[in-house]
Amino acid sequence: MPAPVAWSGGELAVLDQRALPARERYLRCRTPEDVAEAVRSLAVRGAPLIGVAAGYGVALAAARSRGGGAKGAVGDMARARDLLVSTRPTAANLAVAADRVLDAGRRAAKRGHKRDVRQAALDEARAIQLEEERSCLEIGRRGAVLVPEHGNILTHCNTGALATGGIGTALGVIATAHAAGKRLHVWVTETRPLWQGARLTTWEFQRLGIPMTLVTDGAVGSLMARGLVDLAIVGADRIAANGDTANKIGTYPIAVLADHNDIAFVVAAPLSTVDAAAPDGSAIVLEDRDEDEVTRPLGLAIAPKGTHAANPAFDVTPASLIDAIVTDAGVVHPPFGSGLRRALGDGRTPDPRPERSAVG
Amino acid sequence: MPAPVAWSGGELAVLDQRALPARERYLRCRTPEDVAEAVRSLAVRGAPLIGVAAGYGVALAAARSRGGGAKGAVGDMARARDLLVSTRPTAANLAVAADRVLDAGRRAAKRGHKRDVRQAALDEARAIQLEEERSCLEIGRRGAVLVPEHGNILTHCNTGALATGGIGTALGVIATAHAAGKRLHVWVTETRPLWQGARLTTWEFQRLGIPMTLVTDGAVGSLMARGLVDLAIVGADRIAANGDTANKIGTYPIAVLADHNDIAFVVAAPLSTVDAAAPDGSAIVLEDRDEDEVTRPLGLAIAPKGTHAANPAFDVTPASLIDAIVTDAGVVHPPFGSGLRRALGDGRTPDPRPERSAVG
Repeated sequence: MPAPVAWSGGELAVLDQRALPARERYLRCRTPEDVAEAVRSLAVRGAPLIGVAAGYGVALAAARSRGGGAKGAVGDMARARDLLVSTRPTAANLAVAADRVLDAGRRAAKRGHKRDVRQAALDEARAIQLEEERSCLEIGRRGAVLVPEHGNILTHCNTGALATGGIGTALGVIATAHAAGKRLHVWVTETRPLWQGARLTTWEFQRLGIPMTLVTDGAVGSLMARGLVDLAIVGADRIAANGDTANKIGTYPIAVLADHNDIAFVVAAPLSTVDAAAPDGSAIVLEDRDEDEVTRPLGLAIAPKGTHAANPAFDVTPASLIDAIVTDAGVVHPPFGSGLRRALGDGRTPDPRPERSAVG
Repeated sequence: MPAPVAWSGGELAVLDQRALPARERYLRCRTPEDVAEAVRSLAVRGAPLIGVAAGYGVALAAARSRGGGAKGAVGDMARARDLLVSTRPTAANLAVAADRVLDAGRRAAKRGHKRDVRQAALDEARAIQLEEERSCLEIGRRGAVLVPEHGNILTHCNTGALATGGIGTALGVIATAHAAGKRLHVWVTETRPLWQGARLTTWEFQRLGIPMTLVTDGAVGSLMARGLVDLAIVGADRIAANGDTANKIGTYPIAVLADHNDIAFVVAAPLSTVDAAAPDGSAIVLEDRDEDEVTRPLGLAIAPKGTHAANPAFDVTPASLIDAIVTDAGVVHPPFGSGLRRALGDGRTPDPRPERSAVG
């Protein structure tokens, strides 16, 4: 699997996911502005991965800072932080990562020179990337327990290597369960408007050798009603303190349909996705994107000229529809508030109950 | 609005809906085989309209019959009937219309010559077309009562002139309510995989001057959860005796989401859509279509080579999720079994209760 972001030679190479699966091309980001544009345009996407990219984006500001010493570098980093955080409002990981790198730079500035600030920023960005990789492995290991020995798993959007840099969140759980010998078939939703399922998740499952079938977003209900889905598992862009989960548009309908058909619905995401400051889903800012993504998919005009479209990029699935949240610190069961607080508090297994299958 | 089918000069002109909205081009169908291919390829589509087309297709068989007299013509019509009915399994109207024209030919053959058979067949096909137009007006008039004075209506797929030849079923209800002065805005679902909403329904609403906004199928849940939908209204391809309704894939999720969010969900369809021989939805044959419709929309490859897709063209919405069925013989309320039986029995208003708003 090609690396979706890679730091090398003082710049960030970003796999341009807009061109997949047709072409594997990299963008060379030399400035925080380059990284911001890559995030805004969805060349790089996926909540954990845009956190990683933003971390490097802030580090790039320090690397390029001219004059003003350590203090000037921190000022440049703060401006880069604000720019990067403004690109996409919903993913929690973006601000968390940008703030971490900025804070590392600030701490270094108190005791050293500009070169110390640069080094501290880059070290922190690299640490974030490694942590996301490790988080994915933990999520995969802990979530795989919830996957049945054999059956049909449904997933939405892309939550794999392309979204995280690691093995993925929801996709990582499926991949880990598959690697452990569970006999799975995956329904991949195409995920309109940008087809992250059709373009990216299929591409990853092909490489992983996991049997899968693509379906339109509207076909999920039919599959569930016919008994063809044993577990639905998705990622998250931001999880409120009570477990309400913002994720790619189309997630909430999957959760409602799973509930209606008595199918387990599981969210998989690193703790960096949890926003303890948001008491519930109503506090989460949901991004609206350009109507052209709906009316002109991949440049193809599908609607008559003058047709307007609404393009909410995310929806909120209430905690009441979620059966489990798989984090890198353990599987959290309802009620999520206390479990998430424990997980955020000590970073270890948040739920005293033994891990169990959500579908068993 | 251009006529979607028109009989003229001994042949059937069919507006090729695959080319819309980019181009308005007509196919000239001179044989039953031409009509069958137009139906199979979705050049002509919409349950009521493919009934109309099939009627003319059987009439074409009589018109072209050579040798064998009246009996030979009926034999040719019977073969055309079987061919046409085999093209698409789900729409109830198709077989109903083809059988009506064949029966008209058979009756004429008993008392007359081949020219009588031809005339009787063509008369019956024309009668079916006129009846569908009248049915739409009745559905529109009766259904408009259920539409709130102002609000947001959500509809799926295309159920307008392009699907019926008349003013439409669900779309006809919206158009009639709009024409009566109700202040409406319509959410049009794009309706993957073939984009009948994005390509056709938008095109019709533009011509009708009805405010509308296009959304992806996955955005329906978000709209409903945010209180932006006051009524969901859809058409039907086949309605079982108990009210279970087969309609375009993606309908059942809309019904489940409407139920979950306490929003009225209404089906609008002519009585010719009701299949009294199907006790419930499990007896309805649901068409699966080619996977290329999913993986290569309008010829655009969106998934990696080798990706397989499932492409169920319809789903079944259980009667329990439907608040009202608007037919040309009146609005039927739950329980639907008795109401539909009354409607089929006497063709007049099936429900003794006064018409009322489903959202009032």
